[in-house]
Amino acid sequence: MGYSIAVDAMGGDHAPEAPVEGALTALGAFDDLTVTLLGDTAVIEKVLEGKEYNRDRLHILHTTQVVENEERSPADAIRRKKDSSMAVAMRMVREKKADGMVSAGNTGALLAGATLLVGRIPGILRPALSIALPTGERPTLVLDVGANMDCKPAYLVQFAQMSSIYYRAQYGVDSPRVGLLNVGAEGGKGNALTKEVYPMLREETALNFAGNVEARDLFAGAVEIAVCDGFAGNILLKTVEGAAGFILSLMKETISQSVKGKIGGLMLKPDLRDMKHKLDPSSVGGTPLLGVDGAVIKAHGNSKAAAMANAIGQCRRFLQSGVNEDIQKNIEIH
Amino acid sequence: MGYSIAVDAMGGDHAPEAPVEGALTALGAFDDLTVTLLGDTAVIEKVLEGKEYNRDRLHILHTTQVVENEERSPADAIRRKKDSSMAVAMRMVREKKADGMVSAGNTGALLAGATLLVGRIPGILRPALSIALPTGERPTLVLDVGANMDCKPAYLVQFAQMSSIYYRAQYGVDSPRVGLLNVGAEGGKGNALTKEVYPMLREETALNFAGNVEARDLFAGAVEIAVCDGFAGNILLKTVEGAAGFILSLMKETISQSVKGKIGGLMLKPDLRDMKHKLDPSSVGGTPLLGVDGAVIKAHGNSKAAAMANAIGQCRRFLQSGVNEDIQKNIEIH
Repeated sequence: MGYSIAVDAMGGDHAPEAPVEGALTALGAFDDLTVTLLGDTAVIEKVLEGKEYNRDRLHILHTTQVVENEERSPADAIRRKKDSSMAVAMRMVREKKADGMVSAGNTGALLAGATLLVGRIPGILRPALSIALPTGERPTLVLDVGANMDCKPAYLVQFAQMSSIYYRAQYGVDSPRVGLLNVGAEGGKGNALTKEVYPMLREETALNFAGNVEARDLFAGAVEIAVCDGFAGNILLKTVEGAAGFILSLMKETISQSVKGKIGGLMLKPDLRDMKHKLDPSSVGGTPLLGVDGAVIKAHGNSKAAAMANAIGQCRRFLQSGVNEDIQKNIEIH
Repeated sequence: MGYSIAVDAMGGDHAPEAPVEGALTALGAFDDLTVTLLGDTAVIEKVLEGKEYNRDRLHILHTTQVVENEERSPADAIRRKKDSSMAVAMRMVREKKADGMVSAGNTGALLAGATLLVGRIPGILRPALSIALPTGERPTLVLDVGANMDCKPAYLVQFAQMSSIYYRAQYGVDSPRVGLLNVGAEGGKGNALTKEVYPMLREETALNFAGNVEARDLFAGAVEIAVCDGFAGNILLKTVEGAAGFILSLMKETISQSVKGKIGGLMLKPDLRDMKHKLDPSSVGGTPLLGVDGAVIKAHGNSKAAAMANAIGQCRRFLQSGVNEDIQKNIEIH
């Protein structure tokens, strides 16, 4: 049995090259994979020109619209642009013409489309977007990071359940520790939401609930998963991005200010590049929209070909390991 | 006219040395300063032994209890330990026996005590704790970072008003830009709270409201002040701490893995130390509890003597510039 994945060839900072070339890499890596590239046929064929690939496993579906990164309202855009590469990919998943899809395009549009066009797994209250922080041997998964601004306690319980199933399938950890992102480690801490969620998570015996976790402890690998509402998660995600960029640029500045520093910096250059890569969220690959009735993988907006190939491979693994079937079977409705 | 400041000599990781020595440094720097050290007299006198100082401007007030860093309930501790160095300092401020106070002790206890023991400025709904992120030439002030977990929209408007007055007095910026910490730059973004606060801030003509600001843009100096609820602010603060520590340790590891890297690292060592200092929140000094009826300055828990001297100097500047008088005059009650 094979896996058919729709790839948005027009989404992301490096489209169409990155998604098209990433698809070729993924097709080379997996014999059981079929890819449909969605976008402007002429543009896609230009990237394919001169490259070797198996035409039986790579299809192109022409679309005439593109959801841009800078849409005023991403939710409107995905609704309005019915023939956009992203919307068509989503409809393919809904109509089971594709098993899954990958896009590096507009996150807001993808989130809106996931509910509007693909739909939720029965019993799931809200899909969630996760991010895999590259915090060590295994990444730390944080969710929700932007799909749900105001959350009810039951949403967070489902986020914990869905992500535990996903983490197990994706990273081979039998019983991943789930922390509740909070302002202190002790129980009873936090805002109205976390105070209400804490005892609910403690009652879920199928979860490996590790209690509250502070943002700084995520970087020490305190848990495999941290759950939170999409507002707090998004603040966390963008603080990591901002702080990492700031520190790396401060380092460059520091180095360039002294001769000794300059020489030292030159010697360190390959190591620093290596480090920057380790910190790059796109090195982890894509991140799934959990709770959607289909495999919808969001690749980082600045993904290059290798990251897109990773994300497509991740989508295949998501399908292969039956994450959604497990979620549907195990989810408890509160 | 002089300034009298109560210093908690038992609070913080480096007490009693850091607060006592910091007080001596501050007394040397400011002729118009009087300091009362609160704590165990014998312990304080041991640190003072052999040091020169003006006995007319340095007093010791003996206290028998200490609010520890690891109190189960900091709010209970400040209530229960009536003769703790922190509680007595707060009562001195309330009873106008001191103009202000500085402590590097338990933040939760200080926050609880500020309302319970010192009291609010009339008209202020909730005091807020701010943090000054060392983001460039001038720090970026973020508040609230932990005093108020669940905020009403009017609280955030007052945070913006109070911090604008404080920022002007502290950093000499006439009309500091205030951003609303949010998940996107456009209006209409965010959770229920930020959606409600946004138009309220826009109506405040006395504020230089710059709209929504994303966490990553704080590091590019997009605004001088970012307002948020204490839950989101605390997540931001601890993410910065965690990410900075993680990146610096990753750098050390990267450097130690190659000979070339080791040599380069050695050459860079003084520069990196310099950078670490720049990133250290305690290098900015203390941070005030805004809205409290007195100058209450929280120094970072790991403050050494120089940082404590900074925080005492900051308390004096807070008093000198009449921040609280300005807040009381200008605050609008919603």
